[in-house]
Amino acid sequence: MAPPAPRTGDAVFANVERVNAELFTLTYGAIVRQLLTDLEEVEEVNKQLDQISIFRGYNIGIRLIDEFLTKSNISRCVDFKETAEVIAKAGFKMFLGVTASVTNWDADGTSCSLVLEDNPLVDFVELPDTCQGLYYCNILSGVIRGALEMTRAWCCMDKFHSAFWCCFKACISPEPNFWCTHQGMCLVRLATHPR
Amino acid sequence: MAPPAPRTGDAVFANVERVNAELFTLTYGAIVRQLLTDLEEVEEVNKQLDQISIFRGYNIGIRLIDEFLTKSNISRCVDFKETAEVIAKAGFKMFLGVTASVTNWDADGTSCSLVLEDNPLVDFVELPDTCQGLYYCNILSGVIRGALEMTRAWCCMDKFHSAFWCCFKACISPEPNFWCTHQGMCLVRLATHPR
Repeated sequence: MAPPAPRTGDAVFANVERVNAELFTLTYGAIVRQLLTDLEEVEEVNKQLDQISIFRGYNIGIRLIDEFLTKSNISRCVDFKETAEVIAKAGFKMFLGVTASVTNWDADGTSCSLVLEDNPLVDFVELPDTCQGLYYCNILSGVIRGALEMTRAWCCMDKFHSAFWCCFKACISPEPNFWCTHQGMCLVRLATHPR
Repeated sequence: MAPPAPRTGDAVFANVERVNAELFTLTYGAIVRQLLTDLEEVEEVNKQLDQISIFRGYNIGIRLIDEFLTKSNISRCVDFKETAEVIAKAGFKMFLGVTASVTNWDADGTSCSLVLEDNPLVDFVELPDTCQGLYYCNILSGVIRGALEMTRAWCCMDKFHSAFWCCFKACISPEPNFWCTHQGMCLVRLATHPR
């Protein structure tokens, strides 16, 4: 029997449980703001957001990739380019309700940028001058990293598993790579491992 | 011209921007978990969640009440009982996609409990024995408190304003009053001020 056809991000997003975007945005913002009050220095807040991204965002990604694969019917990506497109168009759409664009490819096609111009996480955010270095949306990089690592683990475990979405060693570079400008644009640099 | 008819929580929820509930739940959980790691003691985490609830949840409530009033077309509540029902049925539905039940009224009808049996915030939460005293969902109490305080401020400012939803001095009691059990039930005690 042929596998079910892949579903668009829109179709999947329409059929998952959702909460009010404003509530999510304000809750996340409330916590970042509390961190800024408690820790005072932007650099300290970035460290904390890094921790949350690396240890917690990663775990979120591991869980969300399950939901993504089950509901999207997307199977194996043929190359890194398709992987980036799937994350940008189907992944972001399914969880945040918006899509990212894939740009700034390097010459050998091993790294690109995902640009999230309409980013619900920063809908009401205005960073004052003292917070310009803040990686406000850093949790998202952890989520993507966790999801991709999980698919890589599956690749190693069972190459022909049916619920299988392989990113061909794609991963996020280890540095913090999300930021939000005054305009709320969010950017992540996605790169493959050296082959 | 007659004011527009009030809309149900379902109708409003269907027409607001939303994000995937699992992403919200996991993001909130990730941050609570990071606090537990950093602060170690449940009591310290509760203090931090209280801070977030009082100072940040409150601000969230102030913003969300605007969206609630604009989109629900609900005007003045006739009494505290109706206020509680509107929060439980329309408010929770509009923001979390679920409704709460209103129970445990005291003899003179000045306090009641809102019970959220299907609470998306705790969908994947299992509290270990060491965390039994944790007010996991405490941010919600701040949100409700902020929303109610805002309507009270409007009552004082302009008694006949058209976008006006008065709770007749209803407020949340000042103690932390949300908790989540092993089963994920969430409860808030709502009480009017002495008249």
